[in-house]
Amino acid sequence: MSANKNLLIGAIIFPGFDCLDLYGPLRFFGTRTEDFTIKIVAETHNPVPSTARAATHVDHTFDDCPHLDVVLLPGGIGTRAGVKNERLLGFIRAKAEAATYVLTVCTGSGLLAATGVLDGRKATSNKMAWDWVIGNGECMGDAGVKWDRVEHMRELPCKNIDWIKKARWVDDGKYISAGGVSAGMDMGLHFIERICGKEAALWTARTSEYDWHQDPNWDPFTDMIEAENEKLENSKQ
Amino acid sequence: MSANKNLLIGAIIFPGFDCLDLYGPLRFFGTRTEDFTIKIVAETHNPVPSTARAATHVDHTFDDCPHLDVVLLPGGIGTRAGVKNERLLGFIRAKAEAATYVLTVCTGSGLLAATGVLDGRKATSNKMAWDWVIGNGECMGDAGVKWDRVEHMRELPCKNIDWIKKARWVDDGKYISAGGVSAGMDMGLHFIERICGKEAALWTARTSEYDWHQDPNWDPFTDMIEAENEKLENSKQ
Repeated sequence: MSANKNLLIGAIIFPGFDCLDLYGPLRFFGTRTEDFTIKIVAETHNPVPSTARAATHVDHTFDDCPHLDVVLLPGGIGTRAGVKNERLLGFIRAKAEAATYVLTVCTGSGLLAATGVLDGRKATSNKMAWDWVIGNGECMGDAGVKWDRVEHMRELPCKNIDWIKKARWVDDGKYISAGGVSAGMDMGLHFIERICGKEAALWTARTSEYDWHQDPNWDPFTDMIEAENEKLENSKQ
Repeated sequence: MSANKNLLIGAIIFPGFDCLDLYGPLRFFGTRTEDFTIKIVAETHNPVPSTARAATHVDHTFDDCPHLDVVLLPGGIGTRAGVKNERLLGFIRAKAEAATYVLTVCTGSGLLAATGVLDGRKATSNKMAWDWVIGNGECMGDAGVKWDRVEHMRELPCKNIDWIKKARWVDDGKYISAGGVSAGMDMGLHFIERICGKEAALWTARTSEYDWHQDPNWDPFTDMIEAENEKLENSKQ
């Protein structure tokens, strides 16, 4: 476990990506400069606004992006427009197919599902946006927020995926998907464990003062959010 | 608790800011567009690289920055150069004095301490970089990493501060400081509780699938890191 891994991680972002989906895992990967190089990739060189509005600078566009060993795909409300952007889907598909690992956070798995590469695989996603991700519901904000540009779902090619709702993350070998937002940090540490070993992951968590949930099945949020939704439904009747 | 708060949050960043210090709290604040507007402020309009290299776009420079209701100051290895940058310190001092609230994450409290505005106040900081922050130790990376441009501390005006090490965050009224990196998220939710109420904070945590540590005294990291440091010292003897 001592040789440098020298992996190029490309985070593919789009307007309305969730900033914690992206920067949670990147913070952890960024402490291991001997193992990981991080590049931000987007359709154009324009700074890309996140859900918190703060925008990220682009290192590579789709036109000049090198081979990526690891693809990191955040979620966020921008995935709702993303699944209709054929250029974005085509680029993600090509980079995901060529990569050794593909990591998604939150509704990033919905975007990846729309490319078809998750067919026959196991995956998870955000619990609040679950029905949209698995192709059975209307589009709404990941956090149940009503946004200006909310659009209805299209028929996503996500019916052939073994969707596992109650999970912090799901590791299907090449493809590792996290639940909503904060789950990306636990998945990120799991990835460091897979690539660099347990000690490296524990060190990263400790020195980030992060309370790592090491159990991929830990997920109190599915029940919490379902209970809240039920309360909301009952209050409407 | 129902009227919109309409607070302008300015996050002041610098090269080598910690991306999770910044984007953890911002993700939470960003879901409450009716209460918070978020702007990124830096010395120039050049994109500002984080500890993970990924760079953030600047909304306002020091020259055109409006009044800030809330100052958010991340930490990161860049604070080591930051405490020697008189222009940065002067800008932070002016904005902090004029603001209603000042939030720091990680070694951001060391940077704020260097402006003098924390004198006579209670504050906390990163546990790994503790000795540097309180003015008693050499400079090293927040995560104990050796960086290229590590420089030794100067005499910080941080001797008149009531530094509280074992804390997740410390709320001293106007000034709220978090421990290292991930602690900024717990502090951020505490700030939402103060401004918007408990329900709002719980909703934000739940819909971000975030396991909020609600107790400001929760801090297993001080002991963990001290034990690691002791082990390291003993191995040298």
